[in-house]
Amino acid sequence: MSTRKLKIGLLGCGTVGGGLVELVAKNSALIRERAGVELGITKILVRDPVKERPGVDRALLTTEPDKVLNNGCDLVVELVGGIEPARDFIQRSLFAGKHVVTANKALLALDGFTLLHAAEKQKRRLGFEASVCGAIPIIRSLRNGLVGNRIQSITGILNGTCNYILTRMTEDGIDVDTALADAQARGFAEADPSLDVDGHDAAQKLKILAELALSARLSVDAIEAEGIRDINADDIRTAKQLGYVIKHVATAEVKGDAVSLQVRPMLLPRDHQLAAVRDENNAVLVRGDAVGEMLFCGKGAGSLPSASAVLSDIVDIACHRGGFSAAPQQSLPVTSSDQQCKHYVRVPVADPSAIGVITSVLERSGIGVTRASAQWARKAAGVHQVQVFTTPASSQNVRRCMQDCADLSTGKPVILPAA
Amino acid sequence: MSTRKLKIGLLGCGTVGGGLVELVAKNSALIRERAGVELGITKILVRDPVKERPGVDRALLTTEPDKVLNNGCDLVVELVGGIEPARDFIQRSLFAGKHVVTANKALLALDGFTLLHAAEKQKRRLGFEASVCGAIPIIRSLRNGLVGNRIQSITGILNGTCNYILTRMTEDGIDVDTALADAQARGFAEADPSLDVDGHDAAQKLKILAELALSARLSVDAIEAEGIRDINADDIRTAKQLGYVIKHVATAEVKGDAVSLQVRPMLLPRDHQLAAVRDENNAVLVRGDAVGEMLFCGKGAGSLPSASAVLSDIVDIACHRGGFSAAPQQSLPVTSSDQQCKHYVRVPVADPSAIGVITSVLERSGIGVTRASAQWARKAAGVHQVQVFTTPASSQNVRRCMQDCADLSTGKPVILPAA
Repeated sequence: MSTRKLKIGLLGCGTVGGGLVELVAKNSALIRERAGVELGITKILVRDPVKERPGVDRALLTTEPDKVLNNGCDLVVELVGGIEPARDFIQRSLFAGKHVVTANKALLALDGFTLLHAAEKQKRRLGFEASVCGAIPIIRSLRNGLVGNRIQSITGILNGTCNYILTRMTEDGIDVDTALADAQARGFAEADPSLDVDGHDAAQKLKILAELALSARLSVDAIEAEGIRDINADDIRTAKQLGYVIKHVATAEVKGDAVSLQVRPMLLPRDHQLAAVRDENNAVLVRGDAVGEMLFCGKGAGSLPSASAVLSDIVDIACHRGGFSAAPQQSLPVTSSDQQCKHYVRVPVADPSAIGVITSVLERSGIGVTRASAQWARKAAGVHQVQVFTTPASSQNVRRCMQDCADLSTGKPVILPAA
Repeated sequence: MSTRKLKIGLLGCGTVGGGLVELVAKNSALIRERAGVELGITKILVRDPVKERPGVDRALLTTEPDKVLNNGCDLVVELVGGIEPARDFIQRSLFAGKHVVTANKALLALDGFTLLHAAEKQKRRLGFEASVCGAIPIIRSLRNGLVGNRIQSITGILNGTCNYILTRMTEDGIDVDTALADAQARGFAEADPSLDVDGHDAAQKLKILAELALSARLSVDAIEAEGIRDINADDIRTAKQLGYVIKHVATAEVKGDAVSLQVRPMLLPRDHQLAAVRDENNAVLVRGDAVGEMLFCGKGAGSLPSASAVLSDIVDIACHRGGFSAAPQQSLPVTSSDQQCKHYVRVPVADPSAIGVITSVLERSGIGVTRASAQWARKAAGVHQVQVFTTPASSQNVRRCMQDCADLSTGKPVILPAA
């Protein structure tokens, strides 16, 4: 096998960029042998050229994007993140005839199709394996491995921060704030964790996966997401008693000619395949008409796992392989999803005897109650609460009932569907 | 995107071949849209052209291989199985300038490199995603998705029949023969189940995966394998009491400049990622230096799942993508693996009081015993037995001890390592 050379221009040298430089240096001989490609990073855009970057050749650094784009590279790796100037960098690279690899999930969720169209028009390739679930080859599997399947649903644990926090709460019995502080201390959560714990990150990833799986643009700008901030130790404990685990789950499900999208914490039966996914791991459960259910599980973030995904795109492009960049023409409507399932409900109340009214309101709406308990706050500053577990009912119906009980509650009720 | 045509010659129309015909008919519009390829099956080799094949155009059938190979097709799908004439068909197809897709694991395990070399020489592609773990895109993931990783180990549940039998034994408390009969009744086991239950099928798959992951030919003709025929209900029950599940596990582990290969039933901790893999499912746990541990799980066999894998190779080839066919030059020695771990041992004995001698022999060899029990047969025809659970020790050492106790035992002892 002859060896080709591929010159890479790198935009951004943070966690993933640094990992890429490390991985290319470490495993370049292996890649040359496996794929017949000699990878070389020719220029690296950074904000601060003085910063210490072990293993990175200082001579490659520049603060001027044009020095990267016009340096005769074959492929540009965009790792600066955010919408602008990342979008501009990608478009200019494509117009200059360069292939592009990006990990930019926010940009792809917002405007991936425009970029895919631009790549198609320029007959260049746009790789984005690293944008969803880090090292897990889920983009490649949806594009290639499952190409002969009509995808029926995708169910995933797409945010490692949420999963780490819920795992700590479940296994160590700590509350959400303590678990979040722990996640931050270990580098699994940002200083501003809202993108993760409020569910927006998972929603962006779900949109990318669903559009790819369904080969259609989804007619929604942003998916509504529920996060995990309101989950408390009582929720975790009660779920456990009922035989469930609380997980932050993103779901895309084909329903006729539309797709239903959901991102929220929910109860999973203890023996559900996703219930065993612990700590900062990600997992995606895909259901296709030929393959049935298939599970992919692994590290969803981190320097080397994400760099591994970027590298797989680079090698695919270098070998002229690894998936078309064609952007589908069709568009699918997104339905307001109404699930028919059991629900766990916790209502903060001034008076725990409200349990009678709450269960009556549910029963009057045709929603059975299989378990209800009233809890008096153990501390003076604590919150009294009522917990209810229902028979299968529509989420809208359960929500409506809780609105009817609004004058009894002292805060937002937690309503979790159970799979 | 323009649409290309790809003419497919199909050799064999059994379970997988029939599934392929069905899938191409069902999802061809989807594939055209996603990949810009129009697939057409031009000729099908069958043994019996009169047999009823719903959905298969009788005009395409032939009993003459040459009519398939010389019919102007671009790609040949080999699904006749076995060594010959399958090998001859593949070689002739490659020499005739056709790409080849095969699901033939026996042939690939025996002589995959010769075929890969032939493909490389002819500048044609050889796809074999369907040869291991059916629908799970594990070949593609090892070749492409994890291309930047040095693979450290592969641990898998590679045989669906064994996993189905062990699952039934564990969940329903039935014995191995009843579970096997159940598997046969459901079509998860062949009339002659020896290839599956004696571990040879898993060993073939492990060889293919390990050679691919390590980019090296393994200097072993066949991997020694242990099957599951000797596992009984007591083993399952005792494992459960100890917090383990018995699974049939295939492992390839890099040890210095060699690789250790093992195929055998073993005890997995209940919370091990592979312990949750139930029924006829397959799973592969890959550890790479960049990605850490990654799990792939799904249907390892069956008409449509395997056909989905064949189809993914076909589309990759049609799109000029999906992995090099280069055959690595290097060869890796296979070590006789000696694990240092806890062991479960069951010895059939004439006199259960042999427990004293057996534990003494172990203790004298430096192997601690953390649990031992002697069981009197409940029925006259039954077998007395001694069960022992050890402290971490080498498998060779445990085996040697059991040989020293050979005169006490009335049959082959069961020795299972615990992960």
